[in-house]
Amino acid sequence: MLITITNVLQANELQQFREHLDRADWQSGVKTAGSLARNVKHNQQLDDSQEPAISLGNHILKTLSCHPAFISAALPDRIYPPKFNRYSENETYGAHIDGALMQIPTTHLTLRTDLSATLFLTEPDEYEGGELTIETQYGPQRVKLPAGDMVLYPSTSLHSVSPVSKGVRIASFFWIQSMVRDIQQREMLFNLDSSVQVLTTELGAVHPETVRLSGLYHNLLRQWATPS
Amino acid sequence: MLITITNVLQANELQQFREHLDRADWQSGVKTAGSLARNVKHNQQLDDSQEPAISLGNHILKTLSCHPAFISAALPDRIYPPKFNRYSENETYGAHIDGALMQIPTTHLTLRTDLSATLFLTEPDEYEGGELTIETQYGPQRVKLPAGDMVLYPSTSLHSVSPVSKGVRIASFFWIQSMVRDIQQREMLFNLDSSVQVLTTELGAVHPETVRLSGLYHNLLRQWATPS
Amino acid sequence: MLITITNVLQANELQQFREHLDRADWQSGVKTAGSLARNVKHNQQLDDSQEPAISLGNHILKTLSCHPAFISAALPDRIYPPKFNRYSENETYGAHIDGALMQIPTTHLTLRTDLSATLFLTEPDEYEGGELTIETQYGPQRVKLPAGDMVLYPSTSLHSVSPVSKGVRIASFFWIQSMVRDIQQREMLFNLDSSVQVLTTELGAVHPETVRLSGLYHNLLRQWATPS
Amino acid sequence: MLITITNVLQANELQQFREHLDRADWQSGVKTAGSLARNVKHNQQLDDSQEPAISLGNHILKTLSCHPAFISAALPDRIYPPKFNRYSENETYGAHIDGALMQIPTTHLTLRTDLSATLFLTEPDEYEGGELTIETQYGPQRVKLPAGDMVLYPSTSLHSVSPVSKGVRIASFFWIQSMVRDIQQREMLFNLDSSVQVLTTELGAVHPETVRLSGLYHNLLRQWATPS
Amino acid sequence: MLITITNVLQANELQQFREHLDRADWQSGVKTAGSLARNVKHNQQLDDSQEPAISLGNHILKTLSCHPAFISAALPDRIYPPKFNRYSENETYGAHIDGALMQIPTTHLTLRTDLSATLFLTEPDEYEGGELTIETQYGPQRVKLPAGDMVLYPSTSLHSVSPVSKGVRIASFFWIQSMVRDIQQREMLFNLDSSVQVLTTELGAVHPETVRLSGLYHNLLRQWATPS
Amino acid sequence: MLITITNVLQANELQQFREHLDRADWQSGVKTAGSLARNVKHNQQLDDSQEPAISLGNHILKTLSCHPAFISAALPDRIYPPKFNRYSENETYGAHIDGALMQIPTTHLTLRTDLSATLFLTEPDEYEGGELTIETQYGPQRVKLPAGDMVLYPSTSLHSVSPVSKGVRIASFFWIQSMVRDIQQREMLFNLDSSVQVLTTELGAVHPETVRLSGLYHNLLRQWATPS
Ligand code: NI
Ligand code: NI
Ligand code: NI
Ligand code: NI
Ligand code: NI
Ligand code: NI
Repeated sequence: MLITITNVLQANELQQFREHLDRADWQSGVKTAGSLARNVKHNQQLDDSQEPAISLGNHILKTLSCHPAFISAALPDRIYPPKFNRYSENETYGAHIDGALMQIPTTHLTLRTDLSATLFLTEPDEYEGGELTIETQYGPQRVKLPAGDMVLYPSTSLHSVSPVSKGVRIASFFWIQSMVRDIQQREMLFNLDSSVQVLTTELGAVHPETVRLSGLYHNLLRQWATPS
Repeated sequence: MLITITNVLQANELQQFREHLDRADWQSGVKTAGSLARNVKHNQQLDDSQEPAISLGNHILKTLSCHPAFISAALPDRIYPPKFNRYSENETYGAHIDGALMQIPTTHLTLRTDLSATLFLTEPDEYEGGELTIETQYGPQRVKLPAGDMVLYPSTSLHSVSPVSKGVRIASFFWIQSMVRDIQQREMLFNLDSSVQVLTTELGAVHPETVRLSGLYHNLLRQWATPS
Repeated sequence: MLITITNVLQANELQQFREHLDRADWQSGVKTAGSLARNVKHNQQLDDSQEPAISLGNHILKTLSCHPAFISAALPDRIYPPKFNRYSENETYGAHIDGALMQIPTTHLTLRTDLSATLFLTEPDEYEGGELTIETQYGPQRVKLPAGDMVLYPSTSLHSVSPVSKGVRIASFFWIQSMVRDIQQREMLFNLDSSVQVLTTELGAVHPETVRLSGLYHNLLRQWATPS
Repeated sequence: MLITITNVLQANELQQFREHLDRADWQSGVKTAGSLARNVKHNQQLDDSQEPAISLGNHILKTLSCHPAFISAALPDRIYPPKFNRYSENETYGAHIDGALMQIPTTHLTLRTDLSATLFLTEPDEYEGGELTIETQYGPQRVKLPAGDMVLYPSTSLHSVSPVSKGVRIASFFWIQSMVRDIQQREMLFNLDSSVQVLTTELGAVHPETVRLSGLYHNLLRQWATPS
Repeated sequence: MLITITNVLQANELQQFREHLDRADWQSGVKTAGSLARNVKHNQQLDDSQEPAISLGNHILKTLSCHPAFISAALPDRIYPPKFNRYSENETYGAHIDGALMQIPTTHLTLRTDLSATLFLTEPDEYEGGELTIETQYGPQRVKLPAGDMVLYPSTSLHSVSPVSKGVRIASFFWIQSMVRDIQQREMLFNLDSSVQVLTTELGAVHPETVRLSGLYHNLLRQWATPS
Repeated sequence: MLITITNVLQANELQQFREHLDRADWQSGVKTAGSLARNVKHNQQLDDSQEPAISLGNHILKTLSCHPAFISAALPDRIYPPKFNRYSENETYGAHIDGALMQIPTTHLTLRTDLSATLFLTEPDEYEGGELTIETQYGPQRVKLPAGDMVLYPSTSLHSVSPVSKGVRIASFFWIQSMVRDIQQREMLFNLDSSVQVLTTELGAVHPETVRLSGLYHNLLRQWATPS
């Protein structure tokens, strides 16, 4: 499932983000690469345990916690504290599959990476190349969004960031453990939720079919969701 | 799930059934009881491998094969050839749970008993007592239907036929393996199917929500059904 | 599964509850209703974040935490802090299905509503009407218990509180996430636990079948339970 | 999963197919449309119970039964006897989701539609429009293949055939019940099978990792496959 | 699960088997080996499509079809027609895992190999070496049984036949698809069945706990069994 | 799965453990036995809520938290604070199955006992008897390891400690809830992890099959793991 969520950050928030990020101390991404990633990762990252990564990350988490489209699509259980990376000219991240389990920093909690998220922080015309490329059952899908927009994609997929040939690409990225592990079940719930909303408008909230289908939504969710 | 299906057999069919059954050779039910049932089963049965059991059973099977309410509720995969029993005065069948697996006579096929069915062939005023009593999570449910009506109940339940104190009770009984094993999933499908039918009438067959919910029905069925 | 647990609160506790509740500040239930419930909910509720709701709720939680019948039947994983409602004349709560997921107040924890609980705090002869009505596969079940008794019912069910025509009905209500999500599995465990207890008495704790069936109980629980 | 299998039919076979199909008696597709499809289906179909549909269908089935790529990707359990359709100018089939269960003609067997297949029998330059369009989580995917090539796509997807604006489009279409119902499990098996084949070549058939991974393939298949 | 079933064949049956097998035409086992097995298989086999393999195989199938211990332990759904092999001096079958799916000869049916069976047809003192060695989570288990005895072991295991250093080892081998795929579930059912039998003897068939546990057995079987 | 992990504690750590344990205040094991265990448990235990149990337990937990073989085999989610027991002459612990769920002391957390662990703290030649005996599908397995070594075994198994006939046996024991509940899935992951490591060495970390199989490992883990 490739889900685009637009305007996660507004223009003024983006400007503030950029000010902090342009002044930040970017480090080689190899530092935090696992043994397999070390061979394919050529980019820069912020130190997650320092400012401005902490504050900017918390700002994103707070924004998402009350974002209906994100919640309905992802049914988030745990969100990894957002990380930040930067690709200058010739930098790239080769094809890889994200690890399944991650320790959430400064906690003893483990997160299962059901969904991967990239929140774009530079505009598409600020750099050439740098597409997020996701191998899917339908061939490669290339993603390059306006600053402030976010893409969610299944962490099961092989993906890469193609080389930046000009300019600089800055983004935040993180992972989500969903209360509903299975992608097809999440899709069915998302569709049913949408139907209930349309019928609430068209037929009314107390129409018997609105009530019945709303009950079905919750009973399916009860059968499929595992809050941690 | 206690599902009542009315008028499975019509008056003229019932009359024909009764003519055959009144002339039939009823045998002691102990003959076909398993070791556990032998202690609690006190009734009469027809020999399934002889007429009229074969013809009457086939008539029921043929009727059910094109009965929309039965099909939508039971999603039948295999149906056991209907059997026939008869309770005269003081006869009864004590509390028991039906066996999980049955060999279908004259075949090598096994049937998992997901649903038990009783089709009443005598009218309630022809006998006293003889209720089918099903222990449920909501207490005992007593069932005594007009001739021609059928009840479906989960084969997982402890059930009994209380003693007939006057008159004669004749019924057909059999089991169904459903394509959808889980009772709660069958119920959700049944409700969603009903919603789609109402919306087809109220909003039309090509309304986007009718189409979307019909697709959801089939995708849930695809996820849950196992045809044998 | 409709499970009645008697005497959760004793006479003296009930008296204390009533003293606090009669003095409490009851608010319109619409305040906390979701958009769908708003249309069908006509009752009064206590503010959960204030006394006496907090203390009374904690008292209930503490009582349940060492109540063997409750634990064996519900296998509780998380319990929502008990809420309190009150129906005066003509008040009612129309048919609805409870939401599948709830944020536990003052925590970041989510609770899946597997079971709904109503603990009656007024005696049946203090009011007319006001039955808790649960739509089940076996038809509507009407529940009205002595003060101090509690009913557990599956949160999947459509339920309502019929209008109070005279007097006042006060109750506490809350939800339980069970370690064993599936209702049929919980029932099988409950039955097996009961069998082990009977055999311990009749055959002794070291009889090979007591040991073997006790092991089976724990191995089924291991296969089915997900502690959060 | 969108899987393209090339050259299912060779040039000489295609020529024979075309000779039979051009002489065949094409009927309105509405005849066999269900109540929902009736509104969106505007094409022609062969009568499945007559020649040449029977012979051509059997030829396709026989070809697929020994086609390694098809078998490895689909893990077929049951295949619906191929059907044939024809779109002349302005004909189209609107967006729909295929039914989940189908009775296999002339048998009592039911088939669960896990995969839908379209085998193209006319060349892309013989008609304009007529793309098979599949709505996926990654947006609409348009498919138009050379004659003799086949596409497999998940039957869960909303799909359509866009209007033919010029020429004639002839294809065979059918459904497959897979031994492995879940699409992600089928994909993992397909990838692991490919790895084992590469390692057999690179490291040899008796290399310990070839043996171990081949064993893993079969043990996953054992856990996931349900032959009917 | 390593299950030994003794005396599947009696002395007189064994003698008849040996007479036929000693006269039979044994062929190189490589003929029927898959590409991976070809490297490790060094033994002789009978042609399954000829006598005496057909008659002897049918005899074994008929014996097993009414063997309570075999049925209770394996809950067989499909049994592969027994095959026969022979190891002379220096012959051996290296470590391998059996394929997950097999076409049953002369049918269109597929069998999932849940259990592998070896029925020993020569006495342990007729040959040296030739142990069936099964790698388990508890280390290698070596099996060499009296003629007429059979071992069932999980087809998931890596196993081998160690070289025969003297004499001749003849055995029949085949596979079983169980109605209950999961080995731990089969074990729990087997134990519960044994408990019910003991309690039937010690407490009686109508003792409430015998009835309740017998019902639990059937309800677990209903939840777990998939007849094909 | 019987997994032996050698050298969990080194010689100097063992010496320190022994100094503390020899001075400790050992209590009768009956004190902490459940009602069933009370009949079969005859040994001594440390008070878990006192020193030295707390410090030694924490030392073990810390050692395990960075032990790759333990982590890869057990995929630990929660570990029970290690307990310590001591068997003097004639002491023993009869056959039992460990309880499925345990409250972790001083927390509100529940642990599902997927794996049981025994860490031996006395050398095999310091005592006679005292084997940990695990009933498996392959017969009883007797375990007696050097001091500092640990065995992991499935908590589903019936196990005992045979009587110590001479000397003293001291051990630590505890339980593990795994992120992957099913033992066969854990085994498949363990094998696949080992294959990826071998291929990383033999073919390199960026060889396409190393990358693909590493991705498969993480995708299987994603499908099977439930972090609490
Ligand atoms: Ni990545
Ligand atoms: Ni019955
Ligand atoms: Ni409610
Ligand atoms: Ni279609
Ligand atoms: Ni083999
Ligand atoms: Ni123990």
